[in-house]
Amino acid sequence: MNSIQNYILEHKNRFLDELIELLKIPSISADSAYKTDVLKTADAVKLRLEQAGCDNVEICETDGYPIVYGQKIIDKNLPTVLVYGHYDVQPPDPINLWDSPPFEPVIKKTEKHPDGAIFARGACDDKGQMYMHVKAMEFMTSTNQLPCNVKFMIEGEEEVGSANLATFVKNNHNKLKNDVILISDTGMIANDVPSITTGLRGLSYVEVEVTGPNRDLHSGLYGGAVANPINILTKMIASLHDEDNHITIPGFYDNVEDLSTEERAQMAKAPFSLENYKKALDINAVYGETGYTTNERNAIRPTLDVNGIWGGYTGEGAKTVIASKAYAKISMRLVPNQDWENITQLFKTHFESIAPQGVTVKVTPHHGGQGYVTPIDSIGYKAASHAYQDTFGKAPIPQRSGGSIPIVALFEQELKSKTILMGFGLDSDAIHSPNEHFGVWNYLKGIETIPLFYKYFTEFSK
Amino acid sequence: MNSIQNYILEHKNRFLDELIELLKIPSISADSAYKTDVLKTADAVKLRLEQAGCDNVEICETDGYPIVYGQKIIDKNLPTVLVYGHYDVQPPDPINLWDSPPFEPVIKKTEKHPDGAIFARGACDDKGQMYMHVKAMEFMTSTNQLPCNVKFMIEGEEEVGSANLATFVKNNHNKLKNDVILISDTGMIANDVPSITTGLRGLSYVEVEVTGPNRDLHSGLYGGAVANPINILTKMIASLHDEDNHITIPGFYDNVEDLSTEERAQMAKAPFSLENYKKALDINAVYGETGYTTNERNAIRPTLDVNGIWGGYTGEGAKTVIASKAYAKISMRLVPNQDWENITQLFKTHFESIAPQGVTVKVTPHHGGQGYVTPIDSIGYKAASHAYQDTFGKAPIPQRSGGSIPIVALFEQELKSKTILMGFGLDSDAIHSPNEHFGVWNYLKGIETIPLFYKYFTEFSK
Repeated sequence: MNSIQNYILEHKNRFLDELIELLKIPSISADSAYKTDVLKTADAVKLRLEQAGCDNVEICETDGYPIVYGQKIIDKNLPTVLVYGHYDVQPPDPINLWDSPPFEPVIKKTEKHPDGAIFARGACDDKGQMYMHVKAMEFMTSTNQLPCNVKFMIEGEEEVGSANLATFVKNNHNKLKNDVILISDTGMIANDVPSITTGLRGLSYVEVEVTGPNRDLHSGLYGGAVANPINILTKMIASLHDEDNHITIPGFYDNVEDLSTEERAQMAKAPFSLENYKKALDINAVYGETGYTTNERNAIRPTLDVNGIWGGYTGEGAKTVIASKAYAKISMRLVPNQDWENITQLFKTHFESIAPQGVTVKVTPHHGGQGYVTPIDSIGYKAASHAYQDTFGKAPIPQRSGGSIPIVALFEQELKSKTILMGFGLDSDAIHSPNEHFGVWNYLKGIETIPLFYKYFTEFSK
Repeated sequence: MNSIQNYILEHKNRFLDELIELLKIPSISADSAYKTDVLKTADAVKLRLEQAGCDNVEICETDGYPIVYGQKIIDKNLPTVLVYGHYDVQPPDPINLWDSPPFEPVIKKTEKHPDGAIFARGACDDKGQMYMHVKAMEFMTSTNQLPCNVKFMIEGEEEVGSANLATFVKNNHNKLKNDVILISDTGMIANDVPSITTGLRGLSYVEVEVTGPNRDLHSGLYGGAVANPINILTKMIASLHDEDNHITIPGFYDNVEDLSTEERAQMAKAPFSLENYKKALDINAVYGETGYTTNERNAIRPTLDVNGIWGGYTGEGAKTVIASKAYAKISMRLVPNQDWENITQLFKTHFESIAPQGVTVKVTPHHGGQGYVTPIDSIGYKAASHAYQDTFGKAPIPQRSGGSIPIVALFEQELKSKTILMGFGLDSDAIHSPNEHFGVWNYLKGIETIPLFYKYFTEFSK
């Protein structure tokens, strides 16, 4: 299937120009000021899907931004791949830290991208990675090499929580029926170390409020005689981990899967330098749960982190006040089988139970999502693995990611099919940060690899 | 000495009018916009001291606002009382919470002040209490009943830390030479429960900064694998108290005096309702060091309170970030014999020593002051006690205050004399808060009691 390489060579510049056009539209879903641009982007995606050979391409309205749907059904008896991606992007702030305007894409060489990288908001997350699938589709249809059925579902609210996607999926089981779901919205270890994300962590995010006296007090006149909400909050939060950094919430670990030594061994193959890791973060030591490596701690183990804390006087200088209230935002990363709503309830019950007399505690759940894992012996994973083997010259490493993509668990629940996360970005591509970029080599390598996934998935499904 | 009562009856309205005139000038030392008013107030005080019969009244310039000095030396062989007070006031903010303009004094009846109270910024702290001494002086000189020598030192920077008073005192040992220092800048328990403040707590105020990774991190990708500065800060702060709420800093209690059972018994006489205390603060229980009562906890025992804490994301909603830094402002109230600079050093050494690997800690001292205590068997205390006995019909209760007035320790150090804190305000007078007021009864009772202190102090000094 060398023809894909020739095709890419031939159309490379157009592939880049089309992506750059797409990146110029500031489709910031979080900021209503950009509503017209987000809608304009949906129309652009619709047009590109049609040009790529999709039929029945439509703008599906939701209570929020629309979902662009398109499909190509060549044979009811062949397997169907559902491609998911999103056309909305994160806000570019802090804007002043960008070396070039976030919506004026430029191609610059970097150490990790000697062939150049496209710098723009959304370059990697997710316009660039989503568009690889559109171009791969164009290749397969225009050269009559599409081996199976394809469905595209490209949403415009991923960066704001996919609020309306769930409803759409629930109401369209038939339309979205598929044998495997393909997503490129994650990363890989390095250009010479391909990897496939096989696991995502779930999330439970809560906010806690500790209230002591009914008003701020003078710390001289009341200090030492009443419970200080800030002191109490620190005591309560500190008690959530023991000396081994195990989380002390009763029942927290009940459903945590113990990974097979085989998969832990597979994971350990990922090249990793603790020295470089510490150097990159300017820390003299890593820190975490006893008995697990750094890569295991942030991938296959659940965590509890305070994401924000505040209370009392935080201005310049000194104020001798005992605050009436103290607050914290706390998030727990969960592993597959931990139900986020159950964990949220366990946290609430426990946190309220450890509040000493003299204060009252309020726990407010923010949001959450389930974890997810793809078995590495599934047809989908094997097809992806073979595809990488062909284009990268080596088998990809299965990798658990510490992050969360709640919709993946939703897809499995609603559509009863597994998701394959074929990400071609790098951690250093600065998604969600200033100077986001996506390697030209990675963009083209993705376009080259995707058709092979279709080929192998169809073969293995026979 | 009934003549004082008659004198007050006769001049009551003028005494009130003069104070109200003084209260109309917004002498806010913290806000340079009021500079002219602060200086104008100093002139007004100078004039009143002259009218009260002081000699050599002068405006003593400093690097900040001037100190008004005046004296009446009647006999080198008689004892000398040095009166200290301040003519500057706190800012009135939040201004919208005042029922009447802070610098347009009005007299209104309140539950605790059936004879009416003067509502204005500075009414109690400290113009009203300072002016009691001026009027007491007027009475003694105009009726030839001044029993000893008097010196007045009224400053204009108390509300901003008395920055220049220390220099003035150090450079004027002779001018300020005295046998006892008299200050009315504190309160008493109730109008029918006179009390004298015999102790003040010292203060050490520090700010701490915990730094982990060199930048904010995604809690999904790094959570559980690196030290989270906020989690670490809560652990470190929580460890500063043990289960009995003793402070765990090594050496912290080394110089803490154990109060005599007699003085503890004296203190315990102060009428106190734990129920009302809890009700007033809307708390279901008090909290503090095991083995001490509420009044002891906030008066004779040292404390450690977090006055402010912040770090990470504190805005609306949720952000899954691991902050690079976390901060807290921590103050320790100290008891007599605890040296604040030593305690600050002990805190710094200990706090830095408990920082785990993976973070760095910075401790920045803000400011501090020494504690102070007046022995209840001193001539000064006895004289005050007798004066109260005469005017209130009962002996005052010696009371340790949890607050701090650093200059009192300075006076003893520089001038080698003890201070008697004859305060006539009530805790409910809302000093430093909106609707500050001072009872008319308290104002006149102070004017009535002060001359008796002079009388007894002179007698007991023979």
